[in-house]
Amino acid sequence: MVGSEKVRKIYKESERGLKVPFKEISLSNGETVQLYDTSGGYFYDENPELKKIRKEWIEKRKDLKNPTQMAFAKMGIITEEMEFVALREGVDKEFVRKEVAKGRAIIPANMNHPESEPMIIGSQFLVKINANIGSSEIVADENCEVEKLKASIRFGADTVMDLSTGGNLYKIRENIVRKSPVPIGTVPIYETFERCQKKIENLDFAIFKDVLIEQAEQGVDYFTIHSGILKNNLEKAFKRTTGIVSRGGSIIAMWMCNTQKENFLYTNFDEILEILAKYDIAISLGDGLRPGSIADANDESQFSELKTLGELTKLAWEKNVQVMIEGPGHIPINLIEENIELEKKYCFDAPFYTLGPLVTDIGMGRDHITSSIGGALMAFYGASMICYVTPKEHLGLPQLEDVKEGIIAHKIAVHSADVARGNKMAINWDLQMSKARADFRWEDQFNLCLDRERVYDYFSRSGKPLSENENYCSMCGPDYCPMKMVKKIKEST
Amino acid sequence: MVGSEKVRKIYKESERGLKVPFKEISLSNGETVQLYDTSGGYFYDENPELKKIRKEWIEKRKDLKNPTQMAFAKMGIITEEMEFVALREGVDKEFVRKEVAKGRAIIPANMNHPESEPMIIGSQFLVKINANIGSSEIVADENCEVEKLKASIRFGADTVMDLSTGGNLYKIRENIVRKSPVPIGTVPIYETFERCQKKIENLDFAIFKDVLIEQAEQGVDYFTIHSGILKNNLEKAFKRTTGIVSRGGSIIAMWMCNTQKENFLYTNFDEILEILAKYDIAISLGDGLRPGSIADANDESQFSELKTLGELTKLAWEKNVQVMIEGPGHIPINLIEENIELEKKYCFDAPFYTLGPLVTDIGMGRDHITSSIGGALMAFYGASMICYVTPKEHLGLPQLEDVKEGIIAHKIAVHSADVARGNKMAINWDLQMSKARADFRWEDQFNLCLDRERVYDYFSRSGKPLSENENYCSMCGPDYCPMKMVKKIKEST
Repeated sequence: MVGSEKVRKIYKESERGLKVPFKEISLSNGETVQLYDTSGGYFYDENPELKKIRKEWIEKRKDLKNPTQMAFAKMGIITEEMEFVALREGVDKEFVRKEVAKGRAIIPANMNHPESEPMIIGSQFLVKINANIGSSEIVADENCEVEKLKASIRFGADTVMDLSTGGNLYKIRENIVRKSPVPIGTVPIYETFERCQKKIENLDFAIFKDVLIEQAEQGVDYFTIHSGILKNNLEKAFKRTTGIVSRGGSIIAMWMCNTQKENFLYTNFDEILEILAKYDIAISLGDGLRPGSIADANDESQFSELKTLGELTKLAWEKNVQVMIEGPGHIPINLIEENIELEKKYCFDAPFYTLGPLVTDIGMGRDHITSSIGGALMAFYGASMICYVTPKEHLGLPQLEDVKEGIIAHKIAVHSADVARGNKMAINWDLQMSKARADFRWEDQFNLCLDRERVYDYFSRSGKPLSENENYCSMCGPDYCPMKMVKKIKEST
Repeated sequence: MVGSEKVRKIYKESERGLKVPFKEISLSNGETVQLYDTSGGYFYDENPELKKIRKEWIEKRKDLKNPTQMAFAKMGIITEEMEFVALREGVDKEFVRKEVAKGRAIIPANMNHPESEPMIIGSQFLVKINANIGSSEIVADENCEVEKLKASIRFGADTVMDLSTGGNLYKIRENIVRKSPVPIGTVPIYETFERCQKKIENLDFAIFKDVLIEQAEQGVDYFTIHSGILKNNLEKAFKRTTGIVSRGGSIIAMWMCNTQKENFLYTNFDEILEILAKYDIAISLGDGLRPGSIADANDESQFSELKTLGELTKLAWEKNVQVMIEGPGHIPINLIEENIELEKKYCFDAPFYTLGPLVTDIGMGRDHITSSIGGALMAFYGASMICYVTPKEHLGLPQLEDVKEGIIAHKIAVHSADVARGNKMAINWDLQMSKARADFRWEDQFNLCLDRERVYDYFSRSGKPLSENENYCSMCGPDYCPMKMVKKIKEST
């Protein structure tokens, strides 16, 4: 699965000598295109050796009490991570520092994950995508999850979440973190629930805290924590068409109903923050009450939780913990803009990280498309990261092929938002593709697209085989190719 | 490929006894859902016998000189076709008449296609999708095109265009029209070009007119005609990144460059309209200068042609010919709204029928997704019909499987726009799906979705086999299913 030799990983060097990776494509007209490269080495090599590129940077900071990117940013310090992402995004590093200081962008970078290549999530940067992988209690295969990780990164995932709930959780996660050049997220309440033998009555904060510290030590870069779902939100949520559709949210809801106590992730929020600050783990404030159907979109349950997430954001920022806010879910097209406007307002411009949203409920079997429509629009309006949805959504645990389909669909979605938002790298990518198309430079088109194998396969097996230099494709055939006709006219005049 | 016995074709009877088809789904909770049914008989039966349902209605009108739906509408007459679509869409028939009279909606219905079930295309109705099928000079198989027609209709195409350019064009088209319960469109310049042995110097209006009359006699319901591309637009168009990407547009451009004359589809527009009016064929004014890349979107070439299309729209309406306007193509998300606003303005609210648009140029191999994103947004802003794009776009002629993928992706797109635009039937469809999901009524979900086989396959082969009544799926597994947890809480309180 190695790409063409015309596609290679290059490094640009930053002011203080950091090596920042790009994917460079050599075109047949002599030009080159440089693209943001999420792939670590995995695009070019099945099993690249991951370097601990952040090791030295981290060692310098190890005696500091609060070594978060936000803390440094507030002190006016431009970290190596900030310089790295500035070059990666093609922006000024002081701008990066300011965005991180204000909480408008985050650089998830656990000190115990030195293999990760720094990346930034914020509305002023390229829109990112996350791939959810992980076992479930009925499908648990450790190797399979590493394969999903590799496929995710190869096709463009910016972060990966390990949502495993079955098999040896520690081992699966260890394999993933150590093999990952992108930040890894988890939902620690899942492992906590496992440790309670899935019995709500055994659940408490002490176990949760143990899990948190263990995962922090392993190198997880961000945690989804459902601290915003409160006792007084529950009754309304139960009356919805689809109630609660967040796994973490429903575990906490059950616990609250069982104990009649307030959410322990809310009441112990300070202690959680202290752990996160120590490792520079970002918090992704979970939306336990995200709508799970069009009927429930933008309702009081969602927005009352969102307000709580805003309050928690302020508390986290006081402790210099980097924050992003999770968002829905299922939202019709007409309500997407309101959804993100309220997020910006209630949560003080903290990055919005949404699951799609799905713009209709009937897309089962093709929900990667339903989600790409909503994700593109949400990103256009200012979301910073979109969690992919695979074709298996609502139906089963995604397999390797589903991961690939989910990634590519959402890569198209966020890239189209980048183009619409005027990102120069994104616009140039499109331009180079279109120029290659107009010139019948097929090999260049294959190298510029998101899935070389698929595209080459489609091209070559449609109708009569065509040599790569033919100036038409089987869609219109040689005598009906408009681009060929225009070329003829141009040449004759 | 026959659906569940719980999904059947029913008929509602209109005031004057017309039988209007619906897809009725019997749910396991005793309720029923009725959906708009494009499928003719093809959803329920591989080879249904098509009835000539319009035969009697047409015979009554055969001595009239100008028997178009628009002419009747302007006279205040509610035709059978109008009554049929009113019941089909769940709106008042007088409202249908008014929309048709104003030119804001069309009912493509050639008098020689009595097999077609009337349908309406307009911004106040459900958004429709078109499927392009047809041979090319290097892939021409007559049976294959009929199979594509059937697949299109089965999965929800509202109209089908036969764009064949290879093989026996007459025979392919005859097979398609006679087997089709949905309106059929064509681009007659293709057959004209074939009759000229693909030599521009042989091309003239006389041959075009012969083709037009022959296709009109066969029963084609709408013609794409590129009358709006004019000599003085060409120079700018040639300077674009991707020049001209319309096959019809580039044929006409070559002819104009060759002869130094004005477009014969423009200079002979009146004569074209007279033929169309006689058969009640709608004209789909082709956008020969649609942008073929993000770089060319919303440029002067496109908008100057659009203004000409507006002038032609007025001429067509004077002769009571029903009109829709074709639109792009490639448009970034941020320019979609302007594109349709200008269409409404320049073309006096004639229905807008767009090809996607694709929201980025790099989606090759997955352009059905790129196009669904743009199509959903264009439809939300008011487009009336979206032409599908298949995964083979830019690469090759779509095969049967590509047709299916293209249809389903665009069905999701336009349905999500229907939901966002507040269509009650569409919203109810989503609601029923979500209620079935919350109740673990799997069989109901399979029957309500767009691709029963695919969904059932995903559901049943993910992990351990589940019986259809299990109250979870392998995505979260039994102990992490949020919907199950919420159900438990509800039952215990």
